[in-house]
Amino acid sequence: MDPRNTTGDHRNTPAALNRQSDEMGVPSRLMNTADLGLPVDVPSTALFTDQYELTMLQAALAAGTAERRSVFEVFTRRLPEGRRYGVVAGTGRVLDAVENFRFDADVLGFLREHAIVDEPTLEWLASYRFGGDIWGYPEGEVYFPGSPILRVEGSFAECVLLETVILSILNHDSAIAAAASRMASAAGGRPLMEMGARRTHELAAVAAARAAYVGGFTTTSDLAAGFRYGIPTVGTSAHAFTLLHDRERDAFQAQVNSLGRGTTLLVDTYDVAEAVRMAVEVAGPELGAVRIDSGDLLLVAYRVRQQLDELGARDTRIIVTSDLDEYAIASLAAAPVDAYGVGTQLVTGSGHPTCSMVYKLVARAESADPKAPLEPVAKRSTGGKTSIGGRKWAARRLDERGVAEAEVIGTGAVPVALADRQLLVELVKGGQVLTREPLDVVRDRHAASRANLPLSATQLSRGEPVIPTEYI
Amino acid sequence: MDPRNTTGDHRNTPAALNRQSDEMGVPSRLMNTADLGLPVDVPSTALFTDQYELTMLQAALAAGTAERRSVFEVFTRRLPEGRRYGVVAGTGRVLDAVENFRFDADVLGFLREHAIVDEPTLEWLASYRFGGDIWGYPEGEVYFPGSPILRVEGSFAECVLLETVILSILNHDSAIAAAASRMASAAGGRPLMEMGARRTHELAAVAAARAAYVGGFTTTSDLAAGFRYGIPTVGTSAHAFTLLHDRERDAFQAQVNSLGRGTTLLVDTYDVAEAVRMAVEVAGPELGAVRIDSGDLLLVAYRVRQQLDELGARDTRIIVTSDLDEYAIASLAAAPVDAYGVGTQLVTGSGHPTCSMVYKLVARAESADPKAPLEPVAKRSTGGKTSIGGRKWAARRLDERGVAEAEVIGTGAVPVALADRQLLVELVKGGQVLTREPLDVVRDRHAASRANLPLSATQLSRGEPVIPTEYI
Repeated sequence: MDPRNTTGDHRNTPAALNRQSDEMGVPSRLMNTADLGLPVDVPSTALFTDQYELTMLQAALAAGTAERRSVFEVFTRRLPEGRRYGVVAGTGRVLDAVENFRFDADVLGFLREHAIVDEPTLEWLASYRFGGDIWGYPEGEVYFPGSPILRVEGSFAECVLLETVILSILNHDSAIAAAASRMASAAGGRPLMEMGARRTHELAAVAAARAAYVGGFTTTSDLAAGFRYGIPTVGTSAHAFTLLHDRERDAFQAQVNSLGRGTTLLVDTYDVAEAVRMAVEVAGPELGAVRIDSGDLLLVAYRVRQQLDELGARDTRIIVTSDLDEYAIASLAAAPVDAYGVGTQLVTGSGHPTCSMVYKLVARAESADPKAPLEPVAKRSTGGKTSIGGRKWAARRLDERGVAEAEVIGTGAVPVALADRQLLVELVKGGQVLTREPLDVVRDRHAASRANLPLSATQLSRGEPVIPTEYI
Repeated sequence: MDPRNTTGDHRNTPAALNRQSDEMGVPSRLMNTADLGLPVDVPSTALFTDQYELTMLQAALAAGTAERRSVFEVFTRRLPEGRRYGVVAGTGRVLDAVENFRFDADVLGFLREHAIVDEPTLEWLASYRFGGDIWGYPEGEVYFPGSPILRVEGSFAECVLLETVILSILNHDSAIAAAASRMASAAGGRPLMEMGARRTHELAAVAAARAAYVGGFTTTSDLAAGFRYGIPTVGTSAHAFTLLHDRERDAFQAQVNSLGRGTTLLVDTYDVAEAVRMAVEVAGPELGAVRIDSGDLLLVAYRVRQQLDELGARDTRIIVTSDLDEYAIASLAAAPVDAYGVGTQLVTGSGHPTCSMVYKLVARAESADPKAPLEPVAKRSTGGKTSIGGRKWAARRLDERGVAEAEVIGTGAVPVALADRQLLVELVKGGQVLTREPLDVVRDRHAASRANLPLSATQLSRGEPVIPTEYI
């Protein structure tokens, strides 16, 4: 793994590329080199935590069991209905959250004031820093039911506290990345613009833009995502800009005057054909693009392409942005569309806004002694929600052509044939984050991981996981 | 409106109530009086913004149209499929966001470095403070298709910038509050605990807990929501705590020793009947509650109630927490269940994780002159997404029994008969936030507003909006 930056935070990487991208979403970027105090930096993540993590800690401290060496694993029992694969996203954010998980005076004051835990627990929390180990699927990797996506090892006390925030991040970000990945498959090579900020919580939107980029999106409309993660940002105008002006022509002229002929003009405020004619008249055939945000996109795109060509604007591109999902994108594959803007369906996971990842104690020793044997543990009641105990490894077995054929998970020794196909990598050792990756590395990994699945992985229709999970 | 606190932020209100609630979710709280720098305070909201808001600003500044007096309105064209009413939530957070919407040196540096807007625009942004007026439905109020939920008035420039962050907040928070409201109806008077933090983005979770409280939930598991908004927090233990210990009995004993007999023991790690027997043996009949997190909840609740009664633990309550939604809650109405914990389905809006609220320019003058007439404007192309121009009022007409019978919306003079039924209240005047409400006021308003709808509003089955929207 690239040792630089697991968070996808480009702020400290050398400015190298011109990030001022064109409006189509083809990224070419200048990294933000300033170490800015940004609107989504979170000073402490310690309260993004369900209360029961703290009350369990208190009871375990009192009982003398808090320091038992423990192994927790994150996994899902199933993929969302009909989905062929999952996408691990948010790992970089998890590492940020673990590093920033500490109880300062304000937080301790709150816990004390509300008597959420007792004084010995508050004392313990005051010096809390995670000191254990974390292994996980590298971010961007695909996953399947049972895949041990993250493994957290240390004392029960230090590991149990991290459950809520780790699940929040992975469940949200992976849901968005999975939807993005399907949309990227559907779009073929055409650029995808993330435009969903207004459809989700303002900070979830920033994480969603990051996850969408991991899944294959090209750009985002969300300035905070550009600021925080260096994702290329795009955007020109909305219907309000046309309505502000006395005539559509005045609006187009104002936009071209200010943003240049390469801009994207929105042509569906009044009559599309008239707007396209006027757009080319105002900007000339150098007009960058037109955007269509309503109507029968397939039909309108054909008409607009024909009209643009007839007007000599053969290089003017067509961007469509109206309530798209992966199915609508796929249905436009044959249409003369140059880029897609996606909002609602992306940031809500295209029907699956969360994953069902859980964080389970799978093994623990009887003491803190590193030599004490780890005993597998698991819930066993009859009502479902059972899981497999024991500290797990995972490997992806390939067929003779090198295509993935099974997700193999085990608790014993790793078979020799799978030794170099193991999926878990070490992310944190003794509390120290080992790896930092630029987001482009993560994005490329996802594309490679998806490309290594059987072809049916990218079918949009509902189906079973594209490879089976085998336990050995 | 109560003038104190629209954000629901209780930090500055007098400590008055004992907030250390019991574990069932019955709130009785001690307000947090410390003015803490908390993990969800956001120093600037200016980048939670789609890039096109800024490029439109730049083009309008250059064209001399930026200062035209403008009216933007937030509304939805429809409710989510099958829903009977919507719930306005997030208004208090919108007021926070507007107050904190400013471009500091870091943000301006980012915009300059990436050439997102030109220098004159950066200069304009450097002194940006919203100076206009905002009217809106009071938070907690119900809404219907077309309801002008929020109206933002000022110059085009100052208003257009707020679009993205206002929609992010209202679309997210209202979606959660609507789901919460349905669950609260289904639960009757039984307490509802919000436990969804792990299923959504870690900061969306805090807003979700707030919206759930508005919709009728009683408590939250999310400590950050307790910290930020003073919502009562709850939680005791998970399966991991049982699995940590050598025997289930040891875990129960440890928990009771530390948290007291009034605690809630989780009884479905191994055999439920055996666990219930042991729980009462360890804690005695004073055991506060048992929690069931898997299995056929209806059946198991009956069996556990019978067993508890036979063991003399008649006051020990039963909490159920397994993948509940409003339908599952309703199906347990006759079961001996004392409280519900809801996670995934709450924080994902029970099938509708976002609303479809839009922020549209509905009227503008030809200049900044307050006397220049406002001209209604609206998109008119044939592809759908049309809206009604003009600055609107809204009123809820009642029938002879005082029950809501229509949402009446107009652009002209308000009919005398509806004058005292108007819904919009002034929230911001000349850039100054006028009203601050405690979250309990908002929560009570929602309950009253829902209670004033026709009875069929609380039917869970799919249907049309419970009252029609009339335009006059």
